[in-house]
Amino acid sequence: MPHISLESHLPGITGLLEYSKETAQPIRELTQFLLRGPSSLTEAERELIATVVSHGNECVFCTTAHTAAADLLAGETQTAQKVKENISTAPVSQKMKALLTIAALTRQSGKSVTAEHIEEAKVAGATDVEIHDTVLIASLFCLYNRYVDGLGTALPENPAYYLTLADRLVNHGYTRLPNGYDHLKK
Amino acid sequence: MPHISLESHLPGITGLLEYSKETAQPIRELTQFLLRGPSSLTEAERELIATVVSHGNECVFCTTAHTAAADLLAGETQTAQKVKENISTAPVSQKMKALLTIAALTRQSGKSVTAEHIEEAKVAGATDVEIHDTVLIASLFCLYNRYVDGLGTALPENPAYYLTLADRLVNHGYTRLPNGYDHLKK
Repeated sequence: MPHISLESHLPGITGLLEYSKETAQPIRELTQFLLRGPSSLTEAERELIATVVSHGNECVFCTTAHTAAADLLAGETQTAQKVKENISTAPVSQKMKALLTIAALTRQSGKSVTAEHIEEAKVAGATDVEIHDTVLIASLFCLYNRYVDGLGTALPENPAYYLTLADRLVNHGYTRLPNGYDHLKK
Repeated sequence: MPHISLESHLPGITGLLEYSKETAQPIRELTQFLLRGPSSLTEAERELIATVVSHGNECVFCTTAHTAAADLLAGETQTAQKVKENISTAPVSQKMKALLTIAALTRQSGKSVTAEHIEEAKVAGATDVEIHDTVLIASLFCLYNRYVDGLGTALPENPAYYLTLADRLVNHGYTRLPNGYDHLKK
Protein backbone atom coordinates (compact mmCIF):
# COMPACT_ATOMS: atom_id res chain seq x y z
CA MET A 1 0.00 0.00 0.00
CA PRO A 2 1.33 3.46 -0.85
CA HIS A 3 2.60 5.57 2.08
CA ILE A 4 0.17 8.40 1.20
CA SER A 5 -3.38 8.38 -0.21
CA LEU A 6 -3.10 7.90 -3.97
CA GLU A 7 -5.78 6.88 -6.47
CA SER A 8 -5.69 3.08 -6.35
CA HIS A 9 -6.11 2.59 -10.10
CA LEU A 10 -2.96 4.63 -10.87
CA PRO A 11 0.22 2.60 -10.20
CA GLY A 12 3.82 3.80 -9.94
CA ILE A 13 4.57 7.36 -11.02
CA THR A 14 1.11 7.87 -12.54
CA GLY A 15 -0.62 8.21 -9.17
CA LEU A 16 2.00 10.71 -7.98
CA LEU A 17 1.64 12.89 -11.08
CA GLU A 18 -2.09 13.06 -10.38
CA TYR A 19 -1.57 13.64 -6.64
CA SER A 20 0.63 16.69 -7.12
CA LYS A 21 -0.17 18.37 -10.44
CA GLU A 22 1.91 21.49 -9.71
CA THR A 23 5.11 19.46 -9.41
CA ALA A 24 4.02 17.02 -12.14
CA GLN A 25 3.99 19.74 -14.79
CA PRO A 26 7.72 20.66 -14.67
CA ILE A 27 8.69 17.01 -14.17
CA ARG A 28 6.75 16.10 -17.33
CA GLU A 29 8.29 18.99 -19.29
CA LEU A 30 11.83 18.12 -18.24
CA THR A 31 11.32 14.48 -19.20
CA GLN A 32 9.67 15.34 -22.50
CA PHE A 33 12.57 17.59 -23.49
CA LEU A 34 15.28 15.16 -22.41
CA LEU A 35 13.74 11.94 -23.78
CA ARG A 36 11.71 13.23 -26.76
CA GLY A 37 13.17 16.63 -27.62
CA PRO A 38 15.72 17.34 -30.37
CA SER A 39 18.86 15.24 -29.79
CA SER A 40 21.59 13.39 -31.65
CA LEU A 41 20.73 10.41 -29.41
CA THR A 42 17.75 8.39 -30.62
CA GLU A 43 14.67 8.06 -28.44
CA ALA A 44 15.50 4.36 -28.03
CA GLU A 45 19.02 5.24 -26.82
CA ARG A 46 17.64 7.71 -24.30
CA GLU A 47 15.13 5.14 -23.03
CA LEU A 48 18.08 2.74 -22.54
CA ILE A 49 19.72 5.31 -20.26
CA ALA A 50 16.48 5.53 -18.24
CA THR A 51 16.30 1.73 -18.15
CA VAL A 52 19.89 1.19 -16.97
CA VAL A 53 19.51 3.71 -14.15
CA SER A 54 16.11 2.42 -13.00
CA HIS A 55 17.44 -1.14 -13.12
CA GLY A 56 20.48 -0.16 -11.03
CA ASN A 57 18.15 1.49 -8.50
CA GLU A 58 15.98 -1.68 -8.49
CA CYS A 59 12.86 0.36 -9.21
CA VAL A 60 10.54 -2.30 -10.66
CA PHE A 61 7.89 0.08 -12.01
CA CYS A 62 10.34 2.38 -13.82
CA THR A 63 12.58 -0.43 -15.08
CA THR A 64 9.67 -2.38 -16.55
CA ALA A 65 8.04 0.72 -18.06
CA HIS A 66 11.20 2.05 -19.72
CA THR A 67 12.34 -1.39 -20.85
CA ALA A 68 8.96 -1.70 -22.59
CA ALA A 69 9.36 1.76 -24.16
CA ALA A 70 12.93 0.98 -25.31
CA ASP A 71 11.77 -2.36 -26.75
CA LEU A 72 8.87 -0.75 -28.61
CA LEU A 73 11.13 1.95 -30.08
CA ALA A 74 13.80 -0.60 -31.07
CA GLY A 75 11.33 -3.12 -32.44
CA GLU A 76 13.06 -5.92 -30.49
CA THR A 77 13.56 -6.98 -26.87
CA GLN A 78 17.19 -8.09 -26.83
CA THR A 79 19.09 -4.82 -26.55
CA ALA A 80 17.48 -3.50 -23.36
CA GLN A 81 17.80 -6.91 -21.73
CA LYS A 82 21.49 -7.23 -22.62
CA VAL A 83 22.23 -3.65 -21.54
CA LYS A 84 20.73 -4.44 -18.12
CA GLU A 85 22.85 -7.58 -17.87
CA ASN A 86 26.20 -6.12 -18.96
CA ILE A 87 26.81 -2.78 -20.69
CA SER A 88 30.26 -3.74 -21.97
CA THR A 89 29.02 -6.78 -23.92
CA ALA A 90 25.62 -5.40 -24.99
CA PRO A 91 24.88 -4.94 -28.72
CA VAL A 92 25.20 -1.14 -28.75
CA SER A 93 27.82 1.24 -30.23
CA GLN A 94 31.07 2.07 -28.43
CA LYS A 95 29.68 5.57 -27.86
CA MET A 96 26.54 4.18 -26.22
CA LYS A 97 28.59 1.80 -24.07
CA ALA A 98 30.60 4.80 -22.83
CA LEU A 99 27.46 6.91 -22.24
CA LEU A 100 25.57 4.08 -20.51
CA THR A 101 28.62 3.55 -18.29
CA ILE A 102 28.56 7.27 -17.38
CA ALA A 103 24.83 6.93 -16.61
CA ALA A 104 25.44 3.90 -14.39
CA LEU A 105 28.23 5.74 -12.55
CA THR A 106 26.09 8.88 -12.14
CA ARG A 107 23.47 6.66 -10.54
CA GLN A 108 25.96 5.59 -7.87
CA SER A 109 27.23 9.13 -7.29
CA GLY A 110 28.13 12.11 -9.42
CA LYS A 111 31.62 11.80 -8.01
CA SER A 112 32.01 8.34 -9.57
CA VAL A 113 32.25 9.92 -13.04
CA THR A 114 35.93 10.62 -13.72
CA ALA A 115 37.79 12.50 -16.46
CA GLU A 116 38.81 9.08 -17.86
CA HIS A 117 35.18 7.97 -18.32
CA ILE A 118 34.41 11.26 -20.06
CA GLU A 119 37.51 10.95 -22.28
CA GLU A 120 36.45 7.44 -23.27
CA ALA A 121 33.04 8.77 -24.34
CA LYS A 122 34.59 11.66 -26.29
CA VAL A 123 37.05 9.33 -28.08
CA ALA A 124 34.05 7.19 -29.06
CA GLY A 125 32.44 10.29 -30.61
CA ALA A 126 30.20 11.61 -27.82
CA THR A 127 29.61 15.37 -27.86
CA ASP A 128 29.43 17.66 -24.84
CA VAL A 129 25.64 17.86 -25.23
CA GLU A 130 25.31 14.07 -25.35
CA ILE A 131 27.41 13.76 -22.19
CA HIS A 132 25.39 16.52 -20.52
CA ASP A 133 22.09 14.90 -21.46
CA THR A 134 23.26 11.46 -20.34
CA VAL A 135 24.21 12.75 -16.89
CA LEU A 136 20.98 14.73 -16.57
CA ILE A 137 18.76 11.83 -17.74
CA ALA A 138 20.53 9.55 -15.24
CA SER A 139 20.04 12.16 -12.51
CA LEU A 140 16.37 12.59 -13.44
CA PHE A 141 15.74 8.87 -13.14
CA CYS A 142 17.45 8.89 -9.74
CA LEU A 143 14.71 11.38 -8.86
CA TYR A 144 11.93 9.27 -10.41
CA ASN A 145 13.07 6.00 -8.84
CA ARG A 146 13.21 7.55 -5.36
CA TYR A 147 9.90 9.35 -5.80
CA VAL A 148 8.16 6.13 -6.91
CA ASP A 149 9.68 3.82 -4.28
CA GLY A 150 10.07 6.35 -1.45
CA LEU A 151 6.29 6.79 -1.37
CA GLY A 152 5.67 3.06 -1.68
CA THR A 153 3.60 3.25 -4.87
CA ALA A 154 1.81 0.14 -6.08
CA LEU A 155 2.68 -2.00 -9.10
CA PRO A 156 0.01 -2.62 -11.75
CA GLU A 157 -2.05 -5.77 -11.17
CA ASN A 158 -1.84 -6.79 -14.82
CA PRO A 159 1.65 -6.86 -16.43
CA ALA A 160 0.03 -5.94 -19.78
CA TYR A 161 -0.31 -2.46 -18.25
CA TYR A 162 3.32 -1.77 -19.16
CA LEU A 163 2.68 -2.41 -22.86
CA THR A 164 -0.17 0.13 -22.84
CA LEU A 165 2.02 2.59 -20.95
CA ALA A 166 4.94 2.05 -23.38
CA ASP A 167 2.59 2.68 -26.31
CA ARG A 168 1.56 5.93 -24.67
CA LEU A 169 5.15 7.01 -23.94
CA VAL A 170 6.26 6.21 -27.49
CA ASN A 171 3.27 7.71 -29.31
CA HIS A 172 2.26 10.55 -27.00
CA GLY A 173 5.41 11.31 -25.00
CA TYR A 174 5.63 12.46 -21.40
CA THR A 175 3.33 15.46 -21.43
CA ARG A 176 -0.12 15.28 -19.93
CA LEU A 177 -2.67 13.45 -22.06
CA PRO A 178 -5.45 15.68 -23.41
CA ASN A 179 -9.04 14.86 -22.52
CA GLY A 180 -10.40 11.99 -24.60
CA TYR A 181 -7.37 9.80 -24.00
CA ASP A 182 -8.63 8.50 -20.67
CA HIS A 183 -8.48 4.93 -21.91
CA LEU A 184 -4.70 5.29 -22.03
CA LYS A 185 -4.49 6.37 -18.42
CA LYS A 186 -5.18 2.93 -17.01
CA MET B 1 37.87 21.42 -14.63
CA PRO B 2 34.29 20.64 -15.66
CA HIS B 3 33.79 17.63 -17.96
CA ILE B 4 32.04 19.81 -20.57
CA SER B 5 32.57 23.43 -21.67
CA LEU B 6 30.83 25.65 -19.14
CA GLU B 7 31.25 29.38 -18.52
CA SER B 8 34.18 29.56 -16.13
CA HIS B 9 32.71 32.33 -13.96
CA LEU B 10 29.59 30.23 -13.14
CA PRO B 11 30.35 27.54 -10.53
CA GLY B 12 28.27 24.50 -9.53
CA ILE B 13 24.71 24.33 -10.80
CA THR B 14 24.76 27.90 -12.11
CA GLY B 15 26.92 27.05 -15.13
CA LEU B 16 24.71 24.06 -15.97
CA LEU B 17 21.52 26.14 -15.84
CA GLU B 18 23.11 28.54 -18.34
CA TYR B 19 24.48 25.71 -20.50
CA SER B 20 21.08 24.08 -21.01
CA LYS B 21 18.31 26.66 -20.68
CA GLU B 22 15.57 24.34 -21.97
CA THR B 23 16.12 21.88 -19.12
CA ALA B 24 16.93 24.66 -16.64
CA GLN B 25 13.44 26.14 -16.91
CA PRO B 26 11.44 23.13 -15.58
CA ILE B 27 14.16 22.38 -12.99
CA ARG B 28 13.87 25.96 -11.71
CA GLU B 29 10.05 25.79 -11.66
CA LEU B 30 10.01 22.49 -9.80
CA THR B 31 12.47 23.80 -7.21
CA GLN B 32 10.65 27.10 -6.81
CA PHE B 33 7.35 25.33 -6.14
CA LEU B 34 8.81 22.77 -3.74
CA LEU B 35 11.09 25.10 -1.76
CA ARG B 36 9.25 28.42 -2.01
CA GLY B 37 5.65 27.57 -2.92
CA PRO B 38 2.72 27.34 -0.49
CA SER B 39 3.51 24.75 2.21
CA SER B 40 2.95 23.99 5.86
CA LEU B 41 6.72 23.47 6.08
CA THR B 42 8.71 26.69 6.45
CA GLU B 43 11.23 27.70 3.80
CA ALA B 44 13.98 27.10 6.38
CA GLU B 45 12.68 23.56 7.03
CA ARG B 46 12.63 22.81 3.32
CA GLU B 47 16.18 24.12 2.92
CA LEU B 48 17.22 21.76 5.76
CA ILE B 49 15.87 18.82 3.72
CA ALA B 50 17.96 20.00 0.73
CA THR B 51 20.98 20.40 3.01
CA VAL B 52 20.72 16.95 4.62
CA VAL B 53 20.43 15.22 1.24
CA SER B 54 23.26 17.20 -0.38
CA HIS B 55 25.44 16.54 2.66
CA GLY B 56 24.71 12.81 2.50
CA ASN B 57 25.64 12.82 -1.20
CA GLU B 58 28.84 14.74 -0.34
CA CYS B 59 28.05 17.42 -2.90
CA VAL B 60 30.13 20.35 -1.64
CA PHE B 61 28.56 23.05 -3.83
CA CYS B 62 24.95 22.13 -2.99
CA THR B 63 25.62 21.46 0.71
CA THR B 64 27.36 24.79 1.20
CA ALA B 65 24.78 26.74 -0.80
CA HIS B 66 21.74 25.27 0.96
CA THR B 67 23.35 25.42 4.39
CA ALA B 68 23.89 29.15 3.75
CA ALA B 69 20.26 29.53 2.62
CA ALA B 70 18.95 27.62 5.67
CA ASP B 71 21.15 29.70 7.97
CA LEU B 72 19.98 32.97 6.42
CA LEU B 73 16.31 31.96 6.73
CA ALA B 74 16.77 30.76 10.32
CA GLY B 75 18.87 33.74 11.39
CA GLU B 76 21.42 31.40 13.01
CA THR B 77 23.97 28.80 11.94
CA GLN B 78 23.54 26.07 14.57
CA THR B 79 20.49 24.18 13.34
CA ALA B 80 21.77 23.26 9.87
CA GLN B 81 25.14 22.27 11.31
CA LYS B 82 23.58 20.03 13.97
CA VAL B 83 21.15 18.48 11.49
CA LYS B 84 24.10 17.50 9.29
CA GLU B 85 25.88 15.99 12.30
CA ASN B 86 22.96 14.01 13.76
CA ILE B 87 19.27 14.36 12.91
CA SER B 88 18.07 12.63 16.07
CA THR B 89 19.81 15.08 18.44
CA ALA B 90 19.41 18.24 16.33
CA PRO B 91 17.34 21.16 17.72
CA VAL B 92 14.30 20.61 15.49
CA SER B 93 10.75 19.35 16.19
CA GLN B 94 9.89 15.64 16.37
CA LYS B 95 8.02 16.06 13.09
CA MET B 96 11.09 17.54 11.39
CA LYS B 97 13.30 14.77 12.80
CA ALA B 98 10.97 12.19 11.27
CA LEU B 99 10.80 14.04 7.94
CA LEU B 100 14.57 14.62 7.77
CA THR B 101 15.04 10.91 8.51
CA ILE B 102 12.72 10.06 5.60
CA ALA B 103 14.73 12.46 3.40
CA ALA B 104 18.02 10.82 4.42
CA LEU B 105 16.57 7.36 3.71
CA THR B 106 15.18 8.48 0.34
CA ARG B 107 18.68 9.65 -0.53
CA GLN B 108 20.02 6.12 0.00
CA SER B 109 17.17 4.47 -1.90
CA GLY B 110 13.42 4.92 -2.15
CA LYS B 111 13.15 1.34 -0.87
CA SER B 112 14.80 2.35 2.41
CA VAL B 113 11.67 4.25 3.46
CA THR B 114 9.44 1.82 5.35
CA ALA B 115 5.87 1.99 6.66
CA GLU B 116 7.39 2.38 10.15
CA HIS B 117 9.29 5.55 9.19
CA ILE B 118 6.12 6.97 7.65
CA GLU B 119 4.07 6.04 10.72
CA GLU B 120 6.60 7.78 12.96
CA ALA B 121 6.25 10.96 10.89
CA LYS B 122 2.44 10.78 10.95
CA VAL B 123 2.37 10.23 14.73
CA ALA B 124 4.55 13.35 15.05
CA GLY B 125 1.95 15.29 13.07
CA ALA B 126 3.23 15.11 9.49
CA THR B 127 0.55 15.28 6.79
CA ASP B 128 0.48 13.29 3.55
CA VAL B 129 1.47 16.42 1.61
CA GLU B 130 4.43 17.07 3.93
CA ILE B 131 5.60 13.47 3.50
CA HIS B 132 5.10 13.72 -0.27
CA ASP B 133 7.04 16.98 -0.48
CA THR B 134 9.84 15.66 1.73
CA VAL B 135 10.36 12.61 -0.51
CA LEU B 136 10.18 14.72 -3.67
CA ILE B 137 12.58 17.41 -2.35
CA ALA B 138 15.01 14.64 -1.33
CA SER B 139 14.65 13.06 -4.78
CA LEU B 140 15.15 16.42 -6.49
CA PHE B 141 18.39 17.02 -4.61
CA CYS B 142 19.57 13.54 -5.60
CA LEU B 143 19.12 14.87 -9.15
CA TYR B 144 20.92 18.17 -8.43
CA ASN B 145 23.84 16.56 -6.60
CA ARG B 146 24.46 14.09 -9.44
CA TYR B 147 24.06 16.76 -12.12
CA VAL B 148 26.55 19.07 -10.36
CA ASP B 149 29.17 16.42 -9.54
CA GLY B 150 28.60 14.09 -12.53
CA LEU B 151 29.67 16.90 -14.86
CA GLY B 152 32.59 17.89 -12.64
CA THR B 153 31.50 21.49 -12.10
CA ALA B 154 33.88 23.91 -10.40
CA LEU B 155 33.58 25.34 -6.90
CA PRO B 156 33.61 29.13 -6.45
CA GLU B 157 37.06 30.59 -5.86
CA ASN B 158 35.83 32.85 -3.07
CA PRO B 159 33.76 31.23 -0.27
CA ALA B 160 31.86 34.53 0.11
CA TYR B 161 30.15 33.51 -3.13
CA TYR B 162 27.82 31.26 -1.11
CA LEU B 163 26.56 34.16 0.99
CA THR B 164 25.66 36.11 -2.15
CA LEU B 165 23.98 33.02 -3.60
CA ALA B 166 22.04 32.39 -0.36
CA ASP B 167 20.84 36.01 -0.39
CA ARG B 168 19.60 35.49 -3.92
CA LEU B 169 17.87 32.17 -3.09
CA VAL B 170 16.19 33.67 -0.03
CA ASN B 171 15.15 36.98 -1.57
CA HIS B 172 14.57 36.03 -5.21
CA GLY B 173 13.94 32.28 -5.13
CA TYR B 174 14.89 29.72 -7.73
CA THR B 175 13.40 31.24 -10.85
CA ARG B 176 15.59 32.92 -13.44
CA LEU B 177 16.77 36.38 -12.45
CA PRO B 178 15.35 39.17 -14.60
CA ASN B 179 17.75 41.45 -16.47
CA GLY B 180 19.31 44.04 -14.21
CA TYR B 181 20.23 41.51 -11.55
CA ASP B 182 23.45 40.45 -13.23
CA HIS B 183 25.47 41.42 -10.19
CA LEU B 184 23.74 38.57 -8.34
CA LYS B 185 24.78 36.01 -10.91
CA LYS B 186 28.40 35.97 -9.83
